[in-house]
Order: sequence, then C-alpha cells, then structure tokens
Amino acid sequence: MRYSKKSIELHRQARGKIEIRSKVSLKTKEDMSLAYTPGVAAVCMEIARDKQNSYILTNRGSQVAIVSDGTAILGLGDLGPEAAMPVMEGKSIIFKEFAGIDAIPLCINSTDIDDIVKFCKLIEPSFAGINLEDISSPRCFEILEQLEKELSIPVFHDDQDGTAIVTLAAVINACRVTGRELGDLHVVVNGAGAAGIAIARLLIHAQVKEVVLVDTQGSLYDGRQGMNPIKQEIAERSNKLKHNGDLQSALEGADVFVGVSVGNIVTEEMVAGMNPSPFIFAMANPTPEIMPEAAFRAGACIVGTGRSDMANQVNNALVFPGLFKGLLQTGIKKITPEMKIAVADAIAGSIVPTADNLMPTTFDKQVVDNIVKALSGMASK
Amino acid sequence: MRYSKKSIELHRQARGKIEIRSKVSLKTKEDMSLAYTPGVAAVCMEIARDKQNSYILTNRGSQVAIVSDGTAILGLGDLGPEAAMPVMEGKSIIFKEFAGIDAIPLCINSTDIDDIVKFCKLIEPSFAGINLEDISSPRCFEILEQLEKELSIPVFHDDQDGTAIVTLAAVINACRVTGRELGDLHVVVNGAGAAGIAIARLLIHAQVKEVVLVDTQGSLYDGRQGMNPIKQEIAERSNKLKHNGDLQSALEGADVFVGVSVGNIVTEEMVAGMNPSPFIFAMANPTPEIMPEAAFRAGACIVGTGRSDMANQVNNALVFPGLFKGLLQTGIKKITPEMKIAVADAIAGSIVPTADNLMPTTFDKQVVDNIVKALSGMASK
Repeated sequence: MRYSKKSIELHRQARGKIEIRSKVSLKTKEDMSLAYTPGVAAVCMEIARDKQNSYILTNRGSQVAIVSDGTAILGLGDLGPEAAMPVMEGKSIIFKEFAGIDAIPLCINSTDIDDIVKFCKLIEPSFAGINLEDISSPRCFEILEQLEKELSIPVFHDDQDGTAIVTLAAVINACRVTGRELGDLHVVVNGAGAAGIAIARLLIHAQVKEVVLVDTQGSLYDGRQGMNPIKQEIAERSNKLKHNGDLQSALEGADVFVGVSVGNIVTEEMVAGMNPSPFIFAMANPTPEIMPEAAFRAGACIVGTGRSDMANQVNNALVFPGLFKGLLQTGIKKITPEMKIAVADAIAGSIVPTADNLMPTTFDKQVVDNIVKALSGMASK
Repeated sequence: MRYSKKSIELHRQARGKIEIRSKVSLKTKEDMSLAYTPGVAAVCMEIARDKQNSYILTNRGSQVAIVSDGTAILGLGDLGPEAAMPVMEGKSIIFKEFAGIDAIPLCINSTDIDDIVKFCKLIEPSFAGINLEDISSPRCFEILEQLEKELSIPVFHDDQDGTAIVTLAAVINACRVTGRELGDLHVVVNGAGAAGIAIARLLIHAQVKEVVLVDTQGSLYDGRQGMNPIKQEIAERSNKLKHNGDLQSALEGADVFVGVSVGNIVTEEMVAGMNPSPFIFAMANPTPEIMPEAAFRAGACIVGTGRSDMANQVNNALVFPGLFKGLLQTGIKKITPEMKIAVADAIAGSIVPTADNLMPTTFDKQVVDNIVKALSGMASK
C-alpha cells in the first residue's frame, strides 16, 4: 500500500497519536491546592451531592470511551486488542479535531459478550457516551442491544450505524443528482456483517422500495435455513419477492449496489445486468468490490468507494464526530432510526452534490454543525 | 475550607482538568490517510506481528490507567465513582506535568474485588501500567496482590505504597537532621487502613527497631482476637513486646508518631509521654492528628503533616510521577520492597533537609530524575 511505510514511520516518531493535556495551570503551590488537595475535596462533595455535577466539574461532559475488542479491525479481521489501538487513536484525534470531543481508546482483552457489556457498565460513571468499534458480527448486535437497555449514557456502534448513516446519505445525494426517489429504489446490499445488517435495517426504515441483503450463501429470504436471529429478522423484513439466488442474479433488476464485503467480487457483466444507470457503492477496503472505471464502463451513473484516494468516498468519519457532539449537547440517550435518518439528511444536505462530488469532506466543519442542528431538532420534539 | 469556593469555580470554568490532544497533524487528506485509513492498517499489522510494538507505535508506552471505585476518596470516605473523578483528574495532570505520563482516570461502578481485578485485566492491552487509587481497605490488599500475580504490566496502589514510601523518606530525613539511625527508632503508626498497613510493612522492611500499629481498638499484637488476615500478618511481624493498650500507652517510650487516621486525637500530654525529642508526622487530612504548634510545645523536634499550607508536607505526589516514569523506562514489572526503599532514599536525597524544610517540593524536577535513576539501578542488577 502506498501509505504503509510513511504511516508506520509517522506513528513511530510520534509514539502514537494521542496525549493527555492539562486544562489548568499547575505551576505554583496555589495551583496545586486548587487543582488537587485540599481544594479538590469540595469539588468531590459537590458531585457526591448530585452526580450530574460530574458533567460540569470534570471532563466527563465531553468524554467518550472508544471500546473495542479488536475482532474486526478495518477489513483486516481479528488482530487482537493491542493491534486495534492505532485505529482507535485515529478515531480519537478525529473526534477531537472535528467535534472537540475527548475520546479515550480502550481496547480490551476479551471477546465475550458478557465481559464487554460488563466492562461498559463499569466505566459508565467516567464517560458521557460509549462508541463501540470494530467488534465482529453477530456479537456486536447483542452487545449494543444490551447496552442500550442497561446504560443511561448513549451507546453507538460505529461499524453498524456510522456506516449505515453515511451510506444512506450517499444514496440520498445520488438520488438528488439523478432526480430519483428513495421510494423507487431496489437496493442490493452485499455483506451481512455489522455494516450490511445495519445498512439494510436503515434503508428499510427509510422506505426504500426493495432491499435485498446478500451473504456468501446468496440472498437472505424468509424461509432460508440456518440463519442467525439477526439475519432471520432482516430476511423477514426485506426481500419481498423472496429472491433466493446468488449475488449476480440478485443484482438483475436492481438500481443500487451497496458493497460492504470483499474486493473484486462484482464484475462488469453483473453491473450491466442491473437496471439502467445504477448507483454503485463499492465500499470494501482497501480493494472495492469493483473498481470505479469498470463500474462506469458497465453503465453505472454514480460510483462511490470507501477510499480516500478515489472520488466519492463514503466514510463514517463524516458521522461519529457530529453525532456524538449532538448527543452530548442534547442529552439524547437513545439513537432512534428517525435520528439516524435525520443525521443522514444533514450530511447529505451539507453539499450541493454532483455525480463526481457526491459527499462533503470530513474537513468541512459545516457537517458537524448540521448534524448537531438536526439532533437538536429531534431532541426538542 | 479556604480553597473550596475557588476550586469549585476553577473546575466549573475549565469543565474539569484534562483533555485529549493529537500528537500528529490532521489538516489535510494526506494527514488523514497516514493517521487513519488506509495507512493505519499497516501499523495495526506491525502490532499484530509483535504486540510489543504497541509500546512504540501507539501511546501505550507512556499511558497509565488510574483506576478507582471511589470508596476511599481523600479523607472523605465512600462518595462513589463520579465523585472520585476530580481527584483522579488531579493525579492525571500531576503525572503529565512532572513525569510526562498520560494517565487516564477510570472511575468504575463496582466495589466488588473480582470486578475490579477483572476490569484491570480487561484494560491491560491499552496501558503500560495501572495506578490504583482511593480503594478502601482491606479490599485494596487483595486486589493489588491478585493483580501483581495476574498482570504483566506493573500495578501500584498509591494509597498504600505511595504513602509508605513518602513517609519513609520523611523519617529518613528526620534522622539525617537529628543524627539518628532508622535501626534505633521505635515507631507508632496510628490508623490501620491501606496507608497504615503499608507504612508498617515498609518500616519493618527498612529495619526500624520497633513498629507498633494501632487501630481504633488499640495496638495490634499477635494473639489479639478478631483481626482480618492483613492485620494479623502485621501483628505477627511487629510489636515484639506485645503491647496491648491504647494509643496513649503505645506512645510511651516511642521515638516517632506516624498518623494516618483522623484529626485531633493526639494530645500534648501524649507527645510529652514519648521519648525525648520525638518526630511527629500527623498526616490526617484536612485536620492533622495534632497541630504542629501543640506538638512542638510538647517537645517534638520534627513535625510534618499532609497539608500543603504547613511546613514539611509529606505528600505522595512526590512518589507516583517518578515511580511510574521509572517503571515505564526500565520495564520493571513488580515493585519490590527494596525498590520502595530505594525510591524513599531517592526522594530524601533530593534535598539537604533541615528541621523545618524536611522534604523536597513536588515542583523540584530533580525528584523525578532521582527516582528514575534509583529504579534504573535496581533494574540493571
């Protein structure tokens, strides 16, 4: 990869990407008496009197935990918690740069569902929210569901909902560019991991006409044997025509391909078999399901990938900074499907899209502001 | 308290005391590709290949977790994890200011020994060391013991060993000022919580002539009924004369009083009953066991307290920054009693002491350097 050597060198020289800084002075005995003992005792008592004071008298109010077990790192798979850390530090500096949020990477030494849930419950008093990252499917669904029930701070699984929201934003803007409507689209999602499931769920909620989710066994349909409960749920709620073939046949007559699977598995022939002028979002990393040139040759009118060095990057870094900033500002505890759609709309609305400039960049501060505004609107309802 | 209002105001304005900062630039698409995807994938693989690389390619190498359950906050007792946070943030900025260490406060929602041990095992991959704080006695002993066995990163309980080390440093310098020897001293330690137990253990190891540990029931002696196993251990190893009376009678004939108990429980009469020219370390916070003026009136020749606004502050902030810097630099995994004595010697040796200027200040950078040097010497043996 083009960036590999340079990236390793950057990390080695900086010794990682994050550090702690003090927000107060600590140069005199007086500083010490105010920031630490004896003065700090009064601050502790203020919080003991009312725990909500921890949000204003400590950094908790802008503090988020990034929790990962390292089982689904980027497209690399299960590399363990130590190896997940560079990704989490990357998320942390994105959180800080774009939303002013202090996100603490916590990569943990267990892949057990109960352990991860327990861990998040233990750290709740120190944080205003939890961002789950790179936890493999299907464990991630049960973990998120349990945490949403048991915690009183918001929990977000970026690989599920971050990807789903930014994908919906891309589809919305593809519609704007081409004058189509979500309600007319037949979408095939390939890959039934955390991202694929969440994308399917959100597209269904957004009233897309038809959603078909495809895994390595072919389309998910109601009645297919041997599916886990999460796939079963999607099968029941999607694929109204009960398509039961492979990806190639699933694509026949589809308007949109969304790939969150592996590189090079979509051919020009398969794209040519879709409805005229399809949207192709080939988001496998680092190699897309089909390269943009090939997709265009086969008739695609809009193509996006997950890569920063190609046009129309569909990147969940557009989602999580603004989303958490909004949650922290509004006090929203549970992220509903309506909120996810509002966030997708906010991202999509941050740019006047064209076919080769579909999405805003992460450097556009407007994106975070628009997401916060959208969530504020939801909170006040 | 004099500092209360000002301290609350400082915390409110700054919204706590710590924040995350990025150590790398994140202003361009190229920055993003190196610090995050796609470049970061190569960094993850370097660590997956050899986990030790996490110490140089992420911030782990200078990252310490401050873990507390909030059960023994300062002298305030069990106020819960949220209320512990201001103290932990205070430790964090002291760690950074004096040792360049990034310490992350993690105040957790359980007081169960197994939960706390499990929690520390879970976070091990993200940190180079763990600093336990304000966990009440006697649970703190079992937690530390289990963690020392089960973790491969160093663990330190500041309330035990930080206090013990700085107390030993104070006693050493009191000896230097007065021309006495540790081996001639009869020391009474009042208070058998985390600090008192650890102080007694370390003084015994430092070959002090006689140590008597006193709790609210009187002296601990071999044969006393109803003691927990930790107190039993100290009883067997100290108090050779099997003194079995109260604090007042324990002090008769003692050379040193060390108080880690509660305010105003030592009278002038009790000090007058000690051997001539005793050392009095009355470290209860915020009110000492006896005020310095009273102790001097009763014949004390050296007096120290825990307070920053009195002479001779005996403060464990002199210990933990340098100690962790030394552990991280040397790779020492387990802190032995010999190391604790070496650290106490290093602190004591950082100043030419006088009766009213016994201890170096936390602002003296020499202290951290001397501790690191002392530990480097131990590691190379």
